[in-house]
Amino acid sequence: MPQTDTVNRRIVLASRPNGLPSTHNFRLEQAEMPTPGPGQVLLRTEYLSLDPYMRNLMEEIGPTYAPSVPLDQTMVGGTIARVVASKHPQFRVGERVLANAGWQDYALSDGQDLLALGDDPRPSLSLGGLGMPGFTAYVGLLDIGQPKPGETVVVAAATGAVGSAVGQIAKLKGARVVGIAGGADKCRYAVEELGFDVCIDRRDPQFEQRLAEACPDGIDVYFENVGGAVFDAVLPLLNVGARVPVCGHIADYNSQNLPAGPNRLPLLMAAVLQKRIRMQGFIILDHYGERFEAFRREMGEWVASGRIKLREDRVDGLENAPEAFIGLLQGRNFGKLVVRVGEG
Amino acid sequence: MPQTDTVNRRIVLASRPNGLPSTHNFRLEQAEMPTPGPGQVLLRTEYLSLDPYMRNLMEEIGPTYAPSVPLDQTMVGGTIARVVASKHPQFRVGERVLANAGWQDYALSDGQDLLALGDDPRPSLSLGGLGMPGFTAYVGLLDIGQPKPGETVVVAAATGAVGSAVGQIAKLKGARVVGIAGGADKCRYAVEELGFDVCIDRRDPQFEQRLAEACPDGIDVYFENVGGAVFDAVLPLLNVGARVPVCGHIADYNSQNLPAGPNRLPLLMAAVLQKRIRMQGFIILDHYGERFEAFRREMGEWVASGRIKLREDRVDGLENAPEAFIGLLQGRNFGKLVVRVGEG
Repeated sequence: MPQTDTVNRRIVLASRPNGLPSTHNFRLEQAEMPTPGPGQVLLRTEYLSLDPYMRNLMEEIGPTYAPSVPLDQTMVGGTIARVVASKHPQFRVGERVLANAGWQDYALSDGQDLLALGDDPRPSLSLGGLGMPGFTAYVGLLDIGQPKPGETVVVAAATGAVGSAVGQIAKLKGARVVGIAGGADKCRYAVEELGFDVCIDRRDPQFEQRLAEACPDGIDVYFENVGGAVFDAVLPLLNVGARVPVCGHIADYNSQNLPAGPNRLPLLMAAVLQKRIRMQGFIILDHYGERFEAFRREMGEWVASGRIKLREDRVDGLENAPEAFIGLLQGRNFGKLVVRVGEG
Repeated sequence: MPQTDTVNRRIVLASRPNGLPSTHNFRLEQAEMPTPGPGQVLLRTEYLSLDPYMRNLMEEIGPTYAPSVPLDQTMVGGTIARVVASKHPQFRVGERVLANAGWQDYALSDGQDLLALGDDPRPSLSLGGLGMPGFTAYVGLLDIGQPKPGETVVVAAATGAVGSAVGQIAKLKGARVVGIAGGADKCRYAVEELGFDVCIDRRDPQFEQRLAEACPDGIDVYFENVGGAVFDAVLPLLNVGARVPVCGHIADYNSQNLPAGPNRLPLLMAAVLQKRIRMQGFIILDHYGERFEAFRREMGEWVASGRIKLREDRVDGLENAPEAFIGLLQGRNFGKLVVRVGEG
């Protein structure tokens, strides 16, 4: 059943996953259309963003990260939506906005989390390179990573929403950029289309050696978004004074238990000490107030002028969101993954 | 044989240790008295500093840290010395200096690494709280840790040269300070003499629980100088935005292999991300240019006014340096460990 004017389809968290989520962890429901009260707008979803952080919110991971999704509640997520009813003075019917309506057709908002998109011809980019993932790349790379011209920047998931922006911004700042991606197609794209200097296939049996060869001067900035074996290969290559912004470690998200030994923590501590490494975690929600405006302006210019390219991997139909999301966690997407939920 | 005017006793690195060093890794030799050339001074050692970093220099640990001690060469180390002959315009015979003459009676210097101490009545403090260890505490805590009033600061080796300075400076900055030390005597001293709010015995079978109880508001700054089980207990208590200056991880220094599993690295990465932790390694040698003068002035005032107390653990005789150093790595010292090498 496609999007209609009468029913609100929504996908709720049916159960918490053990390891990699399955489609059984989600449930497609039909609910009543919500009705806006005073000061509210009713939003109809056009595009839903699917992002790795959502895997974290499927678990009860403690109070320090973004809040978990409660069982039987709608999965959270960024959306592009049309205002279809408005009791809010600043938003009129027909207007298109960036919102956080989650995995559903319709939602209410008091306007505080909305960004008017005007007549932007490519609105879904505001879920990708011009939205949260691009902003994550921008803040993590520029504010924490601080690459200098001639330095070597390494980023994994190189054709993904965050990684592709990290690499391209690093190139604009004069760095040498080494990407890591899953498969020859993605690697070729990172070099030929995105302008990375090199891109290494993480499935290559000689991955560690290939990465070392690709970084003859070591690594000055490692933008951490995958963890696992990639981080293990990066660690010995980090230079004195290296910066490691940590925005994710997707390789570990589906682990039920800690990996088998040996315990590599002392190895990390030794590297942090001996190489004076600065490692810093960040959650992009913390940075909207201070930096989002600068990001939108600067990134908007880079994208408009073609200096930064954004690739979208589009899936049709809200009902296909769970499977697409599971694929994302396995690296099956190629570009920023968005779901086309309804007509524009 | 004590210090004489005719022979240079020196302790060289006889072999590289496997695990905890033994006295067999060192060799006491007698060498000729060095003769100063133009622009040089001859130094006679009064005090030798023994510090955990020396364990790292006994191994070939790669080019990014301070240089390793070559086999059969004199062990390195900070010293307090008298100028006993001078062909240098700025240093006169009889003057007392802070130097880096290593584990020996006599050494030459071109003056560049010397600091004149004047008639300082407690010169050996310049090897401890007023020297490299105190400077390590000052830079690591203030520049990286940046404690704010009311925040909780945790430091291990709480009565050691670095830890005792970290805790006392943190108190001066208005933080709540929780120390960790080995044994009831040291814990009592940290609280009663140094003014720590609490000090936990790391040998307590309920250590993890005791630490959690001592940090009801979590940990905002963890000054990392020990690693191992202490770090494992600290990690779950770190607050959002916590800072972790890393100046050492002595618990791991004597490990031949990585510890048994599970691999706790993903746990650290998850904490760094979810709690936006900033972890930063530093080597104090990097900071003398910018910060040593401010440190000497400020710390000198704190010590002179009694606001910071410095405790020395003094061993007599160069020949006893190896055993004292091995004890230091096992936490057997109580206060800053210095060796009295010769008469003042």
